[in-house]
Amino acid sequence: MERVPVLKIGDFLLVSIQIDMEDQTALQLQEDLAEKIVVTGCHGVIIDISALDIVDSFVGRTLATIASVSRVLDAETVVVGMRPAVAITLVELGLSLPGIRTALNVELAIEMLARTRTEAEMLLGDDDEDEADQAAVTTP
Amino acid sequence: MERVPVLKIGDFLLVSIQIDMEDQTALQLQEDLAEKIVVTGCHGVIIDISALDIVDSFVGRTLATIASVSRVLDAETVVVGMRPAVAITLVELGLSLPGIRTALNVELAIEMLARTRTEAEMLLGDDDEDEADQAAVTTP
Repeated sequence: MERVPVLKIGDFLLVSIQIDMEDQTALQLQEDLAEKIVVTGCHGVIIDISALDIVDSFVGRTLATIASVSRVLDAETVVVGMRPAVAITLVELGLSLPGIRTALNVELAIEMLARTRTEAEMLLGDDDEDEADQAAVTTP
Repeated sequence: MERVPVLKIGDFLLVSIQIDMEDQTALQLQEDLAEKIVVTGCHGVIIDISALDIVDSFVGRTLATIASVSRVLDAETVVVGMRPAVAITLVELGLSLPGIRTALNVELAIEMLARTRTEAEMLLGDDDEDEADQAAVTTP
């Protein structure tokens, strides 16, 4: 069975899906991701699908499940790199990936996640001003 | 033909190899990487091979070529995520990946690349002190 690697980069986990998603691969990825979120304490998951020609309902469901599991573990999921043709097909099929946030590329996803985090901290009235200032710099 | 995506993260390009390397895939990856180095001006290439069970002489040669091409374009290449079994097999086969730098994971590779960059700047007597200071913080 092939396994999709989960890479830790700073406060984020990055997954680049390149192989065809089968039942076992999808389940394994969900497990690996959930475990890695808990072990690393990361708050963001970025899933790159730029290698995928086709996103069918199974892949769509898998992405939605990953996003839900991550949310329960206090991590946001962003899907990046969707090809224009994939987006068109998805909508034509009636799959609009509800509950999944998207960004055009990894860097924009990191910005988006950092912004969400800062807003959450501001709502909580976080005392750690340095951290808030630092995060604010990255969000123009 | 399958294509390995090249992701830009800050000053680095990240490639996660998950599919079997065939002639065409390897050539395409070399081309994509070279083009992306030139377009983005990135100074580091990180190649994750944690998904690979086997690294044979063809993959070894491909990695060496990528590293050489990147060097000519002023970018350092670091291979990360090699499995212990892969390392043992490589050495047994007499392939020790000459000219290729390795790190255990993506974060250590980023640190390594940042350190090399800082040293290069210091040798050049770079006036931009802020930048040097900032980079020095990340290298304990």
